[in-house]
Amino acid sequence: MIGTPILPEIRELIETRNFSSLQRLFNDWLPVDLAELISDIPENEQAILFRLLPRDVATETFEYLDFDAQRNLLDALTKKDVTHILNSMSADDRTALLEELPGTVAQELIKLLTFKEFKIAKTLLAYAEGSVGRLMSPDYLSVKKDWTIEKVLGHIRTFGHESETLNVIYAVDDHGKLIGEIVVRDLLLSTLDRKVEEIISGEKMITLTATQDQKDALDAFKRYDKVALPVVDSNGYLIGVVTVDDMLDVAEEEETEDIQKFGGIEALEEPYIDVPLVQLVKKRAVWLVVLFLGEMLTASAMTYFQGELEKAIVLATFIPLIISSGGNSGSQAATLIIRSLSLGEISIRDWWQVMRREIMSGLMLGGILGSIGLFRVILWALILNRFSFVWVLIGLTVGISLVGIVLWGTIAGSMLPLLLKRLGLDPATSSAPFVATLVDVTGIVIYFTVASLMLRGVLL
Amino acid sequence: MIGTPILPEIRELIETRNFSSLQRLFNDWLPVDLAELISDIPENEQAILFRLLPRDVATETFEYLDFDAQRNLLDALTKKDVTHILNSMSADDRTALLEELPGTVAQELIKLLTFKEFKIAKTLLAYAEGSVGRLMSPDYLSVKKDWTIEKVLGHIRTFGHESETLNVIYAVDDHGKLIGEIVVRDLLLSTLDRKVEEIISGEKMITLTATQDQKDALDAFKRYDKVALPVVDSNGYLIGVVTVDDMLDVAEEEETEDIQKFGGIEALEEPYIDVPLVQLVKKRAVWLVVLFLGEMLTASAMTYFQGELEKAIVLATFIPLIISSGGNSGSQAATLIIRSLSLGEISIRDWWQVMRREIMSGLMLGGILGSIGLFRVILWALILNRFSFVWVLIGLTVGISLVGIVLWGTIAGSMLPLLLKRLGLDPATSSAPFVATLVDVTGIVIYFTVASLMLRGVLL
Repeated sequence: MIGTPILPEIRELIETRNFSSLQRLFNDWLPVDLAELISDIPENEQAILFRLLPRDVATETFEYLDFDAQRNLLDALTKKDVTHILNSMSADDRTALLEELPGTVAQELIKLLTFKEFKIAKTLLAYAEGSVGRLMSPDYLSVKKDWTIEKVLGHIRTFGHESETLNVIYAVDDHGKLIGEIVVRDLLLSTLDRKVEEIISGEKMITLTATQDQKDALDAFKRYDKVALPVVDSNGYLIGVVTVDDMLDVAEEEETEDIQKFGGIEALEEPYIDVPLVQLVKKRAVWLVVLFLGEMLTASAMTYFQGELEKAIVLATFIPLIISSGGNSGSQAATLIIRSLSLGEISIRDWWQVMRREIMSGLMLGGILGSIGLFRVILWALILNRFSFVWVLIGLTVGISLVGIVLWGTIAGSMLPLLLKRLGLDPATSSAPFVATLVDVTGIVIYFTVASLMLRGVLL
Repeated sequence: MIGTPILPEIRELIETRNFSSLQRLFNDWLPVDLAELISDIPENEQAILFRLLPRDVATETFEYLDFDAQRNLLDALTKKDVTHILNSMSADDRTALLEELPGTVAQELIKLLTFKEFKIAKTLLAYAEGSVGRLMSPDYLSVKKDWTIEKVLGHIRTFGHESETLNVIYAVDDHGKLIGEIVVRDLLLSTLDRKVEEIISGEKMITLTATQDQKDALDAFKRYDKVALPVVDSNGYLIGVVTVDDMLDVAEEEETEDIQKFGGIEALEEPYIDVPLVQLVKKRAVWLVVLFLGEMLTASAMTYFQGELEKAIVLATFIPLIISSGGNSGSQAATLIIRSLSLGEISIRDWWQVMRREIMSGLMLGGILGSIGLFRVILWALILNRFSFVWVLIGLTVGISLVGIVLWGTIAGSMLPLLLKRLGLDPATSSAPFVATLVDVTGIVIYFTVASLMLRGVLL
């Protein structure tokens, strides 16, 4: 059911310049599907197609276009078309477009706005990127508390066309101070003679402020299952409205940021494929170099144990196996804890409960891997027909080290995010690779310490 | 603004059994905040508090409670209260509760439902877990196409109270077949004498089916910015409605699953802190063991190069540093590509473009790390006053290996998710740790190959 544009046929119609057929076809299409089609065709044909759109869906289609296509159309369309689009766009989508454009281009475009829209655009652009102000629309509908529902319905029919949402309308006092909201449900279910003040939910209202972080708005929408939330200034005056459709995008952005941080990359500001190569390398190099410098300690640790290594070169053979197991178990623990923290399932206060679980998990997981490791060493010696008691000791060294390292990995992996959070830092920032590096270094120390205990007088 | 219950005061009121004050206080609270309070207090007091709630918000509060608190209340409340709650709950929330309960308990509870609600519950529970059917509500409002808007508004006032949403109502033909939808916006803006058929958007309607995956529903909501979508059967008959408030939860679940898979854990079905320890260990052990078995190949590779190792023990010192750099760069690349794939920014067709970017990135990142590595080896030798030309060769071995391994890591990390996707598998499944293991094994081969070329006749 979800739109998959029939590209080959469309392609044919475009190539044969069959514009009237295209125009007929487009009448049945949704703006979002039209936008996808236009984004998919070469830039030099985008404007031709865009001009074929029914006038009433052109602006909405434009809002759905990605930034590159929007910019291309702004260049290719006539000044008259551009003026119409910019003035009829939703204020929040226009803000998003203007903030992406180079300053000089944005300044030129803003001049095309009517005085009213100009004022709105200036106000919204003044809010910081990532703030609620950038998402909000000043087009809402407000009513007075002593109006009847019948009057409200009439007011909506007359003045509602411009409003960003009609799912919620707002009741204000004579000075514009927000005193309550009417959800459309209550409006529709109420008899016509009731007063606004009888159906508003004044006390229990949830509001946002324009300077709040968009993440806070997302949390409020999730918590209260709202379709729209009012934005007020510090004195409680209504200045705008944020709608839930913008929230799924905010959620997606936040998730991408989390995942990228988690994978040890600074969050990219643009899609992977659009980020300039140099910037992409920079964002990755920072953490790679930090981790590399940390990992250098492994070389120092190994140098410290060089005496043991020279005597029992076989020990070197198992180093990658052992330290990577610590890293993997640490990453697992960090993943679980970071996610639980961000969903609010656990908090810093639960650290001891988490620690207990992870000690138990670490012992069990270490036991499993340690047993496999022990078995592998002995089996290997048997197959190569080199079996002797020394191999049992080597196997035990590997097995016991694995228990210790996996245990240490789970503890470090689970406690580091809690510690970062306690210090007021973001627990997701590179935790998994950082834990892996930490465990690599300490893993070598654990391994050689176990070895020198087990193999003293035998190999060492 | 977002609810933070004033717990100490509440605690005092509960302890002093000051129920009338509590009751007055609760009148101003939102159901979601009441639910949080009830979830936070000890189980034996939950029922006492719950009974104080105003009757009109009790059921909604119950819907917001977590599963443990819901179950506790079902045990503690009277049969009459339980019957009332179960019959007045939203059908979709009730389905979610019943599916969590043990079969016998659910059977007992279903018996308390009225015949109408019983039929609804049975129908919804018949749909598979994770399907749209489990999210949908059969409580929607439908109208005929020849009705006037005035008649529709009257119909809503009379029959709309039970409907899950009034943001969209549906037009059906005489047989119940869906022919169009009316969004509340159009309803409110339309003059009273217009007909339903004049304002419905029949052609462009997006519908879901009950057997579809919830992920598909999420994609449709995101793509089309809808607040509700109709669910139809295979013949196009309207059978239910899904609302956007359930979608933020679906998005959260999907994200958690992705992140857990990504961290090399099978997705948990419950919050981290609630999963039984044995199950938690099982979910983690599977991938840890698989990765461990893969990583065993590093030991085999090292055994193969044992001759070189014995001659130049210093080579062992840099193994963890070198292979972990490959793993880190591979994880970064995998993270970026998996996320871009899941956001639809890139597709399998773009593999060559991705490959080109990653070859360039890999060379640059490898160059950075390789230079640091070379510098570190030479500096180390100088500090230890052991510098000789051999150390330059060792430094070059480390540096060149790093370029090769980081390059290989970025290529493997970026291509593996695309390959998995091409094979119809989920690209997120353990890609990052799997890439790290793959790169560890090949990293050793690359390192010793470079070493035998650089150091032949000197150390080897």
